[in-house]
Amino acid sequence: MSLIVQKYGGTSVGSIERIQTVAVKVKQSRDRGHRVVVVVSAMSGETDRLLDLARAIQPRPSPRELDVLLSTGEQVTIALLTMALEAAGCPARSYTGAQVQVRTDSAHNKARIRDIDGGRVMGDLESGRVVVVAGFQGIDEHGNITTLGRGGSDTSAVAMAAALKADECQIYTDVDGVYTTDPRIEPRARRLPRITFEEMLEMASLGSKILQIRAVEFAGKYRVPLRVLSSFKRGEGTLITFEEDDVEEAKIAGIAFAKDEAKLTILGVPDQPGVAHKILGPISDANIEVDMIIQNIAADAKTTDFTFTVHRNDYGKALEILKDTARALSAREVQGDEHIVKLSLVGVGMRSHAGIASRMFEALAREGINIRMISTSEIKISVVIDEKYLELGVRALHDAFGMAQNG
Amino acid sequence: MSLIVQKYGGTSVGSIERIQTVAVKVKQSRDRGHRVVVVVSAMSGETDRLLDLARAIQPRPSPRELDVLLSTGEQVTIALLTMALEAAGCPARSYTGAQVQVRTDSAHNKARIRDIDGGRVMGDLESGRVVVVAGFQGIDEHGNITTLGRGGSDTSAVAMAAALKADECQIYTDVDGVYTTDPRIEPRARRLPRITFEEMLEMASLGSKILQIRAVEFAGKYRVPLRVLSSFKRGEGTLITFEEDDVEEAKIAGIAFAKDEAKLTILGVPDQPGVAHKILGPISDANIEVDMIIQNIAADAKTTDFTFTVHRNDYGKALEILKDTARALSAREVQGDEHIVKLSLVGVGMRSHAGIASRMFEALAREGINIRMISTSEIKISVVIDEKYLELGVRALHDAFGMAQNG
Repeated sequence: MSLIVQKYGGTSVGSIERIQTVAVKVKQSRDRGHRVVVVVSAMSGETDRLLDLARAIQPRPSPRELDVLLSTGEQVTIALLTMALEAAGCPARSYTGAQVQVRTDSAHNKARIRDIDGGRVMGDLESGRVVVVAGFQGIDEHGNITTLGRGGSDTSAVAMAAALKADECQIYTDVDGVYTTDPRIEPRARRLPRITFEEMLEMASLGSKILQIRAVEFAGKYRVPLRVLSSFKRGEGTLITFEEDDVEEAKIAGIAFAKDEAKLTILGVPDQPGVAHKILGPISDANIEVDMIIQNIAADAKTTDFTFTVHRNDYGKALEILKDTARALSAREVQGDEHIVKLSLVGVGMRSHAGIASRMFEALAREGINIRMISTSEIKISVVIDEKYLELGVRALHDAFGMAQNG
Repeated sequence: MSLIVQKYGGTSVGSIERIQTVAVKVKQSRDRGHRVVVVVSAMSGETDRLLDLARAIQPRPSPRELDVLLSTGEQVTIALLTMALEAAGCPARSYTGAQVQVRTDSAHNKARIRDIDGGRVMGDLESGRVVVVAGFQGIDEHGNITTLGRGGSDTSAVAMAAALKADECQIYTDVDGVYTTDPRIEPRARRLPRITFEEMLEMASLGSKILQIRAVEFAGKYRVPLRVLSSFKRGEGTLITFEEDDVEEAKIAGIAFAKDEAKLTILGVPDQPGVAHKILGPISDANIEVDMIIQNIAADAKTTDFTFTVHRNDYGKALEILKDTARALSAREVQGDEHIVKLSLVGVGMRSHAGIASRMFEALAREGINIRMISTSEIKISVVIDEKYLELGVRALHDAFGMAQNG
């Protein structure tokens, strides 16, 4: 008999009918002999409805009061799902974040979980009840309601699984697992039965929107086995494991990409200590996040060229700031390009396998795709290429590394 | 500087615009130097919307889960009103029932308040904040969310006022006070500047829907001065006081009436001990509430006639039951009438003033209105008359006791 935490997102509980479907799935797990804790989000659309109400009063409502407002979304879902479970003959009980003492810091709208008191939940499980907990929310040390920010329900589920020492944390979503790459771009993309935490972290941060990155970090830290499954289709999904040996063909897990990137370059900067800080300081002061950074000595060996990427939304602002910096540093020129994408090959197998990078570059060259930037980590290689080559590049790499689905 | 608790019902906070209007009213009270605690209901329509969701899952949802669901209604209002106050430049903070420890018994959907911890609220008031509290809700000793039942926000406000030893509890509603009778029936009805608690209790239980009867009882028990005011019009409203001397012309406060009554009579019941129980026991077993009860010895002095009134909705069921009882008791006959109304004259002055009853009966007789039943208490006289005479009877009494508005 296992203890399982299941998390259902907003789409999975988006209507009365879907809540009833979730109740049936939960009951099946319990009927199989598992002890089940369910973590749910607000019904899809509900958070936006509440935000619209708040913004009709004040464009920037107080973070504390926004949390009081938004936390009602999950509270509605826990009550309805518990009613649906009871209607299906499955004893159940609901709890808000405050009621199960999901203790967070006081950073309203983006709080971090500190700990959870699992005692009350364990008592209910031992009495044979399914426990339904509101995701996304907690309380701070003063009893104020906090929320974890959008997508925080994944983190709630993982934290609950860690607190209860659950055997598995199952994230039900609208996809049936983690794929080698986006199936909308490469129809032969293959579902991965397993992936390591490190790979999943790289995949998540590189644009796969399946799991909240903070939830993956949390699961890695507390060694909670995570599984991504579909709310609507049967199947085993993808298990995210910390046992590298478990992962079959441990070379490349998949191809991630980020579409909304833009590239900025400042050329001919006098090469002095502290120049990187002088260039990136004003960018970061403007709250613009920088992704890849590359610095090269220029041909004249006295100046340096400095390139970085930002989110495309920040491109205009970043360009303005960089032009000011260029004048202040007497740099030669500023260049920018907002029609680029980032393509990344991810796999723990890279560590021990030489030649992955050159095979990647070769595959792209064969298709005539020019590489504009390269950046590597222990388990990933990222390249920046022209936007128009995105689909071609993904498919070329998918082929080159033999990731295609059999049959 | 007074401490005032203000309560705004669902209609008063029924839209963003109305919430903003309430914020302005609250801020004005604070600007006048008062410390203000605001108790609010769910936005009008919200409780019904949530009930519909629950009933779509289960016609009789679990009372515990229904409370988890319904309590979100007020939680939305406290957040929005606090945002509106802050937007108006008035520092404020919201609290759920759980956060201010509104402790109740565990009777979900109809819980009774045991006590409230005013400490946190006092701290905020001392820092110059307006405190906004969710009405209608509390927690039981196990931390489960409870609700007080419909209209319970009035009781929340009175209980909060009692806990804080407030100088006044102001109930804002869609009428501007308590009237001598319903102005829709008697256009010359006059607003009472003051009324005693006992009179208000009789008026409330006799059909005036201005205040929750439990809230009035609570205010009387803890001696909280209550004031009924309009959310939409300026004015002093009606103060409900426990000082009888304060009440001007201490004879008659007003005329209440109940339209939805029905009368049942069982004739010729053998007069034995326990007969009243034999007649009313089966009625009460069927969960039918009985209002007036009258028993008379019949002309033959060996049998008795027994008459009582019930809500018109229960008439058919009560008639069936009574016919069975009549057979069992060998009574002569059962009669019923569902076209009756109850008219009541209420006033603490009755205690010391003789002749009120005869003046009442005379005024009705003058209009040719036949009295079908009479029942009296220390501070009220109720008569049952034919439904068609309701308006005529109200106006006749209003005239006879000089209650008309001057000018």
